[in-house]
Amino acid sequence: MKTKKVAIVGASGYSGEELVKLLLQHPHAELVAVTSRQYAGQTVAQVFPKFAHQPHARQLKFSEPNVDQLAQQAEVIFLALPHGVAAEFAVPLLKYGRQVIDLSADFRLRSAAIYKDFYAHDHPAPDLLASAVYGLPEVYREQIKSSALVASPGCYPTSILVPLIPLLKAGLIKAGGIIADSLSGVSGAGRKAELDYLFCECNESVRPYGVPKHRHLSEIEEQLSLAAGAPVVIQFTPHLIPVNRGILTTLYLAPAKHFSNAAELFTLTGQITECYQNAYGNEPFVRLLDNKRLPDTKNVVGTNVVEIAWRLDPRTGRLIVMSAEDNLVKGASGQAVQSLNILCGWPETAGLI
Amino acid sequence: MKTKKVAIVGASGYSGEELVKLLLQHPHAELVAVTSRQYAGQTVAQVFPKFAHQPHARQLKFSEPNVDQLAQQAEVIFLALPHGVAAEFAVPLLKYGRQVIDLSADFRLRSAAIYKDFYAHDHPAPDLLASAVYGLPEVYREQIKSSALVASPGCYPTSILVPLIPLLKAGLIKAGGIIADSLSGVSGAGRKAELDYLFCECNESVRPYGVPKHRHLSEIEEQLSLAAGAPVVIQFTPHLIPVNRGILTTLYLAPAKHFSNAAELFTLTGQITECYQNAYGNEPFVRLLDNKRLPDTKNVVGTNVVEIAWRLDPRTGRLIVMSAEDNLVKGASGQAVQSLNILCGWPETAGLI
Amino acid sequence: MKTKKVAIVGASGYSGEELVKLLLQHPHAELVAVTSRQYAGQTVAQVFPKFAHQPHARQLKFSEPNVDQLAQQAEVIFLALPHGVAAEFAVPLLKYGRQVIDLSADFRLRSAAIYKDFYAHDHPAPDLLASAVYGLPEVYREQIKSSALVASPGCYPTSILVPLIPLLKAGLIKAGGIIADSLSGVSGAGRKAELDYLFCECNESVRPYGVPKHRHLSEIEEQLSLAAGAPVVIQFTPHLIPVNRGILTTLYLAPAKHFSNAAELFTLTGQITECYQNAYGNEPFVRLLDNKRLPDTKNVVGTNVVEIAWRLDPRTGRLIVMSAEDNLVKGASGQAVQSLNILCGWPETAGLI
Amino acid sequence: MKTKKVAIVGASGYSGEELVKLLLQHPHAELVAVTSRQYAGQTVAQVFPKFAHQPHARQLKFSEPNVDQLAQQAEVIFLALPHGVAAEFAVPLLKYGRQVIDLSADFRLRSAAIYKDFYAHDHPAPDLLASAVYGLPEVYREQIKSSALVASPGCYPTSILVPLIPLLKAGLIKAGGIIADSLSGVSGAGRKAELDYLFCECNESVRPYGVPKHRHLSEIEEQLSLAAGAPVVIQFTPHLIPVNRGILTTLYLAPAKHFSNAAELFTLTGQITECYQNAYGNEPFVRLLDNKRLPDTKNVVGTNVVEIAWRLDPRTGRLIVMSAEDNLVKGASGQAVQSLNILCGWPETAGLI
Repeated sequence: MKTKKVAIVGASGYSGEELVKLLLQHPHAELVAVTSRQYAGQTVAQVFPKFAHQPHARQLKFSEPNVDQLAQQAEVIFLALPHGVAAEFAVPLLKYGRQVIDLSADFRLRSAAIYKDFYAHDHPAPDLLASAVYGLPEVYREQIKSSALVASPGCYPTSILVPLIPLLKAGLIKAGGIIADSLSGVSGAGRKAELDYLFCECNESVRPYGVPKHRHLSEIEEQLSLAAGAPVVIQFTPHLIPVNRGILTTLYLAPAKHFSNAAELFTLTGQITECYQNAYGNEPFVRLLDNKRLPDTKNVVGTNVVEIAWRLDPRTGRLIVMSAEDNLVKGASGQAVQSLNILCGWPETAGLI
Repeated sequence: MKTKKVAIVGASGYSGEELVKLLLQHPHAELVAVTSRQYAGQTVAQVFPKFAHQPHARQLKFSEPNVDQLAQQAEVIFLALPHGVAAEFAVPLLKYGRQVIDLSADFRLRSAAIYKDFYAHDHPAPDLLASAVYGLPEVYREQIKSSALVASPGCYPTSILVPLIPLLKAGLIKAGGIIADSLSGVSGAGRKAELDYLFCECNESVRPYGVPKHRHLSEIEEQLSLAAGAPVVIQFTPHLIPVNRGILTTLYLAPAKHFSNAAELFTLTGQITECYQNAYGNEPFVRLLDNKRLPDTKNVVGTNVVEIAWRLDPRTGRLIVMSAEDNLVKGASGQAVQSLNILCGWPETAGLI
Repeated sequence: MKTKKVAIVGASGYSGEELVKLLLQHPHAELVAVTSRQYAGQTVAQVFPKFAHQPHARQLKFSEPNVDQLAQQAEVIFLALPHGVAAEFAVPLLKYGRQVIDLSADFRLRSAAIYKDFYAHDHPAPDLLASAVYGLPEVYREQIKSSALVASPGCYPTSILVPLIPLLKAGLIKAGGIIADSLSGVSGAGRKAELDYLFCECNESVRPYGVPKHRHLSEIEEQLSLAAGAPVVIQFTPHLIPVNRGILTTLYLAPAKHFSNAAELFTLTGQITECYQNAYGNEPFVRLLDNKRLPDTKNVVGTNVVEIAWRLDPRTGRLIVMSAEDNLVKGASGQAVQSLNILCGWPETAGLI
Repeated sequence: MKTKKVAIVGASGYSGEELVKLLLQHPHAELVAVTSRQYAGQTVAQVFPKFAHQPHARQLKFSEPNVDQLAQQAEVIFLALPHGVAAEFAVPLLKYGRQVIDLSADFRLRSAAIYKDFYAHDHPAPDLLASAVYGLPEVYREQIKSSALVASPGCYPTSILVPLIPLLKAGLIKAGGIIADSLSGVSGAGRKAELDYLFCECNESVRPYGVPKHRHLSEIEEQLSLAAGAPVVIQFTPHLIPVNRGILTTLYLAPAKHFSNAAELFTLTGQITECYQNAYGNEPFVRLLDNKRLPDTKNVVGTNVVEIAWRLDPRTGRLIVMSAEDNLVKGASGQAVQSLNILCGWPETAGLI
């Protein structure tokens, strides 16, 4: 299979590191450049000792980020940069005719106005929003195939959208009143020297944050609205828990049709089962648990899998859906590589199973 | 102040251990007996080395549980036993005229039928249910004062009832549609040699369990119904997180009166503030956080405090209330000691601050 | 018993916080001032929410550090400051006739030359070194009683000196070839926003550091030399482990007299038992474990206790001694309060049991 | 490259699980059978949900262990069984002409007497001891190539032997007085439902155990004696720390030749550097750190790498060597797969990088 040369801009954070890991071992992608202002001149093995047993990590050096050079070196470029900064690279790289997979929030929204509402500054490249594809392969696989600019989804959004979209599309749940309660490992906060993320501040601690208006709501609601065919506003509460990796989301949903007896429960059970089976029965990275199991982040950490389980509660009439993922893999870098595989016509699981 | 002799039956689990700790350092209670079939004959210091620097812990020995003896030795007896077993001790001890503070679920419900529905066996002493007082001091302080049998609340129920009851009583929220999403440390599962609670099975893991019908729902809903003056059914999802201690609960609530503009938001904000201030402004163990803070279990672990914060979300019209407590202190043994203080006419904070 | 007014300078780090906790609940000390440039104007309850249920914490405010004011307000002043800075407060406070308990390294050494060798700058107040008392009550109780300047020991030194000094004094072990292998929780690194101490960098990680010349060696060796009556040089390797609190030290020692048969083993066992019993049999904060137990940090965390166990290894002829302590309590603030109790003539365990 | 059919007997513990993981993704080995009395009939995906995204894991079922069947199905059989039990399978499988890689302690020693001394029962198959090869590829690569029975080393032994053997062989250190202080994650204790390994008993805890005579000493000392050409007795202290995986070992060594000035230090530094470079410069799974780095388990977890760093201490004259490994990979299953690769003539890093 034809290989492609790929590069990573901004590879020194946690998702950059995970992306390096995945691309170093990818069977078809050749990692030709990684950039970092801080680490320029050092090898990947020096910056990330855990990869030092891989020969390529001992040769490849971090370089200063330079658009012209990147455009010459690589065919596909990953951007693992803060929002706002990513666009500065995406715009010229696209002009060079390169394909860009952006892990930041810069191109995830279609609306520049919503971007401004949630990110508090004007969008740096509003013209590109229409052409960017939201890189959730389970929903946008066809569009990713021919896209020049893939906006890879956020970690919380992935954990919420994957379980919700099929239900909304099938009309099985009400679009109103959705609640998403999420728990995230500390790597989600990034590799930043802040007191809040010190070991002693996170260990033996659990806390909500960003209540009630977290930035990720913007892309979650835009995607849910597209699925529902009508505006969707949800309640979302993120919590920080003392694990390195993993997001567990619990969704509280109202079935579109009330069930009040065993027969209706049986029917709805069948419909939800079928809905998920149709949507994800053949998806390599969505694991539908049987009715005896519940998701557990330890079963997905280090993999590109989202686990999903659900229960109908006859006492309350609600549908509870739970998902688990690795925030750095399916929630970030693994999903970006999944998009790469689709873009390049490689098997979608290449380098991920 | 007059001291009282107290005993603990079943002191070898995590909440028994916490109770021993609190009573060893209590200024007015004298711990005269601790029982444990497993540890009979050993001193408290031998079984719990962490208390060995306290002289009394080196003298006091575990004994076989014996009702007659306990009735002779102690005036107030704590039962830290599995549900079903606690009643076997409570019945004869009450006949002896002793006061009993029971940490099990045996006497928390008023209805023997609901007990059977949730605990899957007949209630062992249904006659006592009417006279038992639910030991939540913030709600039942007066009744505890003269009670012979205090049923100390469960850990999840405390974290849910303390923030909810004032809102329901004041009619500020709808009684329907309440959702409680809770995260608990592993000590909540007790000191049991089961694979599920091994370090490697819990560390770097987060998972829901007991969905959708956890036993604690029975006492939660009974108490909420009493507060609301009408039957309340709630949605409750417990999750296990890798900390030793602490429960964080996030409540999703619908204000009784819809708010759709800034003025209504302002009014409702004032009403909720006033409601909580009236209910808990003088409570020594309820901490109402200001509007810049959110609860964090690390700020309550080792104390008898429940932290509460809340936010109104103008986007969804919902009220989000969050609470944090130590499941072994306010959620179990600390609250039981708080009841002891009330029972005995001691300052309510004795031994707890 | 007569109370005394005490103050803490620099109370915003982890050991400062622990000191605040201990002094808030102390039966004889009255905490009248806490200083912090960063938090001046805020109450203790605002800065440390976990103390907010204590009335005094809601009233006492942090102030800017000011020597004149401190001298007026308090009779005993604790310094919880970085080394080098502590001396700037100690010198004028002593001139005012106040008693100072310093938790920094500034006055732990008798030799200004050794200070310079290990701390890389001239000692700021060499004249005071002779009069300062090393605040290890188990060794210097009498000297602490009348001291104006107590230099409270470091966390690693305490865990090493307490088990070693009696053996050296009794001549039971050789002074040469001592090895101390120590494991410390992350709070030992202080509350500093550095990448190395982020949750994700410490969790699921163990690592040695500061090999082979850690600063604490200076005070360890000075004290061991005094005990041995001859210069002692030791091997010391600290490691960082993912717990909030706790130090576990394993000491590898050579008995002064070789044992090569059961009779000699028996004799030596008796001598060591007797040595420790004589030294610590009546010490309230040293726990000599019986020969079936080994130290575990979880049994000392939150207490002022050092646990000690030892084994003679007939295969190697060595004596292995193991100790456990809470680095923030016996290793820092608890020990400082123990010195306060001695200074003030209060029961040594006041506020600590 | 020719594939081989392999089987795992006893695949339900932590090292069995890791072996399943490595063999599922191995490019040349075909995992045809996994046995477990407890899980017979269930698929690998059902027992280990984390592998369920791999198609083969959804097909392969656990079976009851049956020697005849195993001999028919597989060419190489891994035994991940308790010591004593492994021999019961090894003996008949070898008679069938199969190759066996045993992860238990059964065939690691050459001396049945030492086995009995440390394991407290007669060796079950002493005749096989002479022909078994100790499966440490860095030392016994040639012997493994043609071996029918590979005894894969223990986790602690690997972390101690890899750094020590070259130094002993080169005569750079004294064979007497060696001290190994090791810290291990909790998975080293196996997947056993015991109170000691509950989350709440291990979290926020550090403790030594098995002092002073741990079973692993037998194989460590036998191998060191072979390397030194004379009997070696060492001091070994294992500690349990709250991480899932990882062993960190700190070795305290006496250089064979005393160094007392800068020139001698320089010479010895060169000799040790050269010794390790010669021994491991080309080893794919031994990482010699430069003199600015120290080992950290987080850099080896999930890999088959041992990290090694060392320091000469001019103050004490000692050599300190530190190593880090993943106890389940290089310390168990990864090393076993490394032996498989050697046995089968595959690239030694196949499936491991």
